[in-house]
Amino acid sequence: MAFQPTDSADAGSRAIADDRRLTDQQRAEIDSARAATSTTRRPTVPALEEILYDALPVLDHGFVRVIDYMGDDAAVVQAARVSYGRGTRKVHEDAGLIRYLMRHWHSTPFEMCEIKLHVKLPIFVARQWIRHRTANVNEYSARYSILDREFYIPSPAQLAAQSSANRQGRGDVLPAEEAAKVLEVLREDAERCFGDYAWLLNEDADGNPIDPNRSGIAREPARMNLTLNTYTQWYWKIDLHNLMHFVRLRADPHAQYEIRVYAEAISDVMRRWVPVTHQAFLDYRQDAAQLSAPALAVIQRLLAGEEVAQPDSGLSKREWRELMATLGRGE
Amino acid sequence: MAFQPTDSADAGSRAIADDRRLTDQQRAEIDSARAATSTTRRPTVPALEEILYDALPVLDHGFVRVIDYMGDDAAVVQAARVSYGRGTRKVHEDAGLIRYLMRHWHSTPFEMCEIKLHVKLPIFVARQWIRHRTANVNEYSARYSILDREFYIPSPAQLAAQSSANRQGRGDVLPAEEAAKVLEVLREDAERCFGDYAWLLNEDADGNPIDPNRSGIAREPARMNLTLNTYTQWYWKIDLHNLMHFVRLRADPHAQYEIRVYAEAISDVMRRWVPVTHQAFLDYRQDAAQLSAPALAVIQRLLAGEEVAQPDSGLSKREWRELMATLGRGE
Amino acid sequence: MAFQPTDSADAGSRAIADDRRLTDQQRAEIDSARAATSTTRRPTVPALEEILYDALPVLDHGFVRVIDYMGDDAAVVQAARVSYGRGTRKVHEDAGLIRYLMRHWHSTPFEMCEIKLHVKLPIFVARQWIRHRTANVNEYSARYSILDREFYIPSPAQLAAQSSANRQGRGDVLPAEEAAKVLEVLREDAERCFGDYAWLLNEDADGNPIDPNRSGIAREPARMNLTLNTYTQWYWKIDLHNLMHFVRLRADPHAQYEIRVYAEAISDVMRRWVPVTHQAFLDYRQDAAQLSAPALAVIQRLLAGEEVAQPDSGLSKREWRELMATLGRGE
Amino acid sequence: MAFQPTDSADAGSRAIADDRRLTDQQRAEIDSARAATSTTRRPTVPALEEILYDALPVLDHGFVRVIDYMGDDAAVVQAARVSYGRGTRKVHEDAGLIRYLMRHWHSTPFEMCEIKLHVKLPIFVARQWIRHRTANVNEYSARYSILDREFYIPSPAQLAAQSSANRQGRGDVLPAEEAAKVLEVLREDAERCFGDYAWLLNEDADGNPIDPNRSGIAREPARMNLTLNTYTQWYWKIDLHNLMHFVRLRADPHAQYEIRVYAEAISDVMRRWVPVTHQAFLDYRQDAAQLSAPALAVIQRLLAGEEVAQPDSGLSKREWRELMATLGRGE
Repeated sequence: MAFQPTDSADAGSRAIADDRRLTDQQRAEIDSARAATSTTRRPTVPALEEILYDALPVLDHGFVRVIDYMGDDAAVVQAARVSYGRGTRKVHEDAGLIRYLMRHWHSTPFEMCEIKLHVKLPIFVARQWIRHRTANVNEYSARYSILDREFYIPSPAQLAAQSSANRQGRGDVLPAEEAAKVLEVLREDAERCFGDYAWLLNEDADGNPIDPNRSGIAREPARMNLTLNTYTQWYWKIDLHNLMHFVRLRADPHAQYEIRVYAEAISDVMRRWVPVTHQAFLDYRQDAAQLSAPALAVIQRLLAGEEVAQPDSGLSKREWRELMATLGRGE
Repeated sequence: MAFQPTDSADAGSRAIADDRRLTDQQRAEIDSARAATSTTRRPTVPALEEILYDALPVLDHGFVRVIDYMGDDAAVVQAARVSYGRGTRKVHEDAGLIRYLMRHWHSTPFEMCEIKLHVKLPIFVARQWIRHRTANVNEYSARYSILDREFYIPSPAQLAAQSSANRQGRGDVLPAEEAAKVLEVLREDAERCFGDYAWLLNEDADGNPIDPNRSGIAREPARMNLTLNTYTQWYWKIDLHNLMHFVRLRADPHAQYEIRVYAEAISDVMRRWVPVTHQAFLDYRQDAAQLSAPALAVIQRLLAGEEVAQPDSGLSKREWRELMATLGRGE
Repeated sequence: MAFQPTDSADAGSRAIADDRRLTDQQRAEIDSARAATSTTRRPTVPALEEILYDALPVLDHGFVRVIDYMGDDAAVVQAARVSYGRGTRKVHEDAGLIRYLMRHWHSTPFEMCEIKLHVKLPIFVARQWIRHRTANVNEYSARYSILDREFYIPSPAQLAAQSSANRQGRGDVLPAEEAAKVLEVLREDAERCFGDYAWLLNEDADGNPIDPNRSGIAREPARMNLTLNTYTQWYWKIDLHNLMHFVRLRADPHAQYEIRVYAEAISDVMRRWVPVTHQAFLDYRQDAAQLSAPALAVIQRLLAGEEVAQPDSGLSKREWRELMATLGRGE
Repeated sequence: MAFQPTDSADAGSRAIADDRRLTDQQRAEIDSARAATSTTRRPTVPALEEILYDALPVLDHGFVRVIDYMGDDAAVVQAARVSYGRGTRKVHEDAGLIRYLMRHWHSTPFEMCEIKLHVKLPIFVARQWIRHRTANVNEYSARYSILDREFYIPSPAQLAAQSSANRQGRGDVLPAEEAAKVLEVLREDAERCFGDYAWLLNEDADGNPIDPNRSGIAREPARMNLTLNTYTQWYWKIDLHNLMHFVRLRADPHAQYEIRVYAEAISDVMRRWVPVTHQAFLDYRQDAAQLSAPALAVIQRLLAGEEVAQPDSGLSKREWRELMATLGRGE
């Protein structure tokens, strides 16, 4: 049942990573699930069926797997019309309706689609993720089970990028030597804590004592010794409206890198699943901008040909910078 | 688009009722949706597919239609185990796990199944139904559309039963003559209000004025003239855990008859969909009893051979009656 | 317990309306609640205490009453900082933080304030209102109690405005004569249905039969005979974040008039309660605009001095009109 | 802003613990908040005001602080009656209504009371706690701030109890020597990981570099090196209905010890706040039992004088044991 420990530094190419992040047994179970098909009267999305159950790699040991889904673009239209049949008309009429619903914040038709994912992710990412309350979650329980010996270690490039972005004007680039030391510390601490967790448990995968002369402690308290970059996993189910809210907040450039890559993987899944809704989402949510009343006033003055500078704009310096960036007028 | 007015008093046999509560066009749309099938890798439930999209009749003009579903009994097990594959083992092991989860109030694995219904129901029933907040709803909008000329009129038998049950000790049986008068009043008021609603709108199904000499008012204010037994309809989507909560509260003998029949129809749907979960639900929820600490003390005294009467039981008269009923010891 | 029937056409001035929409007993109960004070360590808002329990009039018989509240502007700051004490600093620092949180869609600090209202409203408004699921509701039960003989009748001016706005290009102004007839129909239907409801019940306020020769039917089925403009009432409790969402959607010019006036009354309450948050809400939510990616591209071209017309804008005609309106460039 | 490190092994007596788990500045902020009072028309609960803002100690470094509350026992009654005034009648009538509501699972009146807590708790406890989704949470952010050097270490007695309870029949009592070694491992790993976290940050409380020759990494990635017994803190707000659900599940003997002690502290808070509701909660929820349909049948047979043994009871061995325990007939 346990995963093979892998050297996270190698997790470069998708194919290799994919090979290493699943045990042979897990791969066999997935293949078997993929092989079974049945006939259904329900709406079906071939592009999503294509990747159903597959482990889409994220970070060094994580993944996103689509386990099930309900509905498609047409189901949004069908619900909006409270239809007796499929409810769809011409392709461009349906797309127009979806875009109208998105633009005017009609949320209920999008709630009529649902998706279920199996996600493997570091605990510190799980702690951010769970803040989205309008979803269903079933997490692998370290109270009853033993976790896999896997922890997230950033790539050197990622570590450097994150550090300079967050500490502007303070020195910036993380020297290679210090970066190497950082990664060593992270790996050693995680390894030692996991090793001690195993020692505390004193049991093998079948629940038998490893050292017959020691009692060991219960799984429940033992897990407190793990570090926050240890991987956990869960089933996560959410409707399309709330999924878009999740992606908008977590695929945002200001989100932490480690959750952003999950949000991006999920955005790709969404594109396969409901392509029309996905495009409307990009146009009216992800790539859109919210302009405050004072910011709108500035734009109106600019369009009228007036020169406007921050001090007489009614905006704070920070808001002024944000507005100029939105308008593509970075200094 | 409008339904044919039907004589609700005729709504006796299921086949006939079914014929009359759908227009030819609606029936054709449903048949067409039922005819289309595809291949899927998702778990599929043949017993539920059998009735997919069909209008299951409820009350004189209402129905429940299953539009879509996600998961089955095995999906509950799979989520509880956070599995890579189907996650199921032997049939009786899986059933044992489902019953264990139900008994110990584990809700999250049941949240991993989802169902979507199309329901036609009187507005006063919709007002009770919507109090279940953990669900997604898309209602047919009387703000933008014109409602069908259909209202719920109780059957004489139902009217009599409800009246005597609710007004114990006051005279009980509703005389046949008065019952006839009651139904006449209900029907006349609903008919007149709907007629006036149509007059206020002054537009036909295509939105053209009926009387070119009158302006008519907007759909939005016009609907306020309808009575609460007018039928509305909605798409309603909910997870299995919250569905069971709904059924438990609304299929209860104390629930109002008109919502209870919907809950019973949905309970039948659930039996087709997730039979093992449904049986566990009956045993541990619907047919189970919650016994208070004082009530448990009474049972312990009774089992010890003691004679216990209400005054020395620590229970109020009402609680005593409820306990005796639970124990099958009605006076 | 029953309200006095009032002539809705008179409901002009606030003082008079206020006098007539409460019975003497209700007024006495409110005065008595207002008279009782105690000492508390909790944050207190004098401007809100001033109107606590008062019935703020809305529509012809409705009202909004503030029953209780938790927190103030400082509580938002305190939660954002997870403080041990009051958590506030200088006034302008706190305001800056609140505006920052609003601008960047941080919702959790605003969820830390809560308000509880008692609202009297027509049933068709209640049906829209209840769609906001993230709130707590306790409605007056027509299953167990008898409703007051009160129904909403629009003012002639409102009726005319609503009709022309919704039926653009079709004839517009509702002639005075037709308007009078419309109001007469609404009033007569509501009166007759309520009268028949009372006849069906055959019981007075104390539950005694009015006509001893008739049985009457239970309250539960009788209420189905009421029209949708009958007033109901409820206690409604919601956190500040979700309250702002409600106000933004329902105080919008596109919302139906009859719910909009409630949202506006609540917006005034909010201004008393959390003035800094309320101003930020106006600037970054209510008076702000969401600009899509294609709309932003148009603005950038306009600012660069380019002439842009709808056909080469990448926007639909409708979106183009909406954008021009946002920019104050109506045709 | 940082807490003083404390020797958790000393955290025995409440007074001492309380002294040590707050810094002088935190204590001063709390005292100042407690000293400020105002006059309010809102319902106020003196027994709860008495402990308002105080840190009620839980575990070795944790606490629960009541920050604010809305409503009292009378507010439950007032909401159930949708009253204009206080809504309460005689004390025993009000208590009877509250007990009736509890017994018959009426949840909405209890949702009309709300409480806000400040909680300090180990991260692994926070991960269980957050699964209760119907609450508002604002957590101290390790993304922007530096956590305190505090981690939970179980007491030797607790460690022994937990281990034997969870590993029945396997050796049971944890020898004192092994227990001492376990605690040493837990403490050393937590200390080392926290020390390395500080080294990774390379910044003091004011954000200045400690070692000017090193760059340090951002707070965001650094926190992944912490162990799950590190303390975090949050503001948590919840209504009374959902609070009771939390307490019932988490004060249960099967809940993990470390969250149970928080649930028990909160149950005490509830007793101060809404004593009548709290007693009804104990009688009808916490100390009540859910009996399945087959279990009820067994009781009926027993009461009829029949001998019933597990094999012919229709119950599994496990369910039989549970029923016998409920009936006080443990073997």
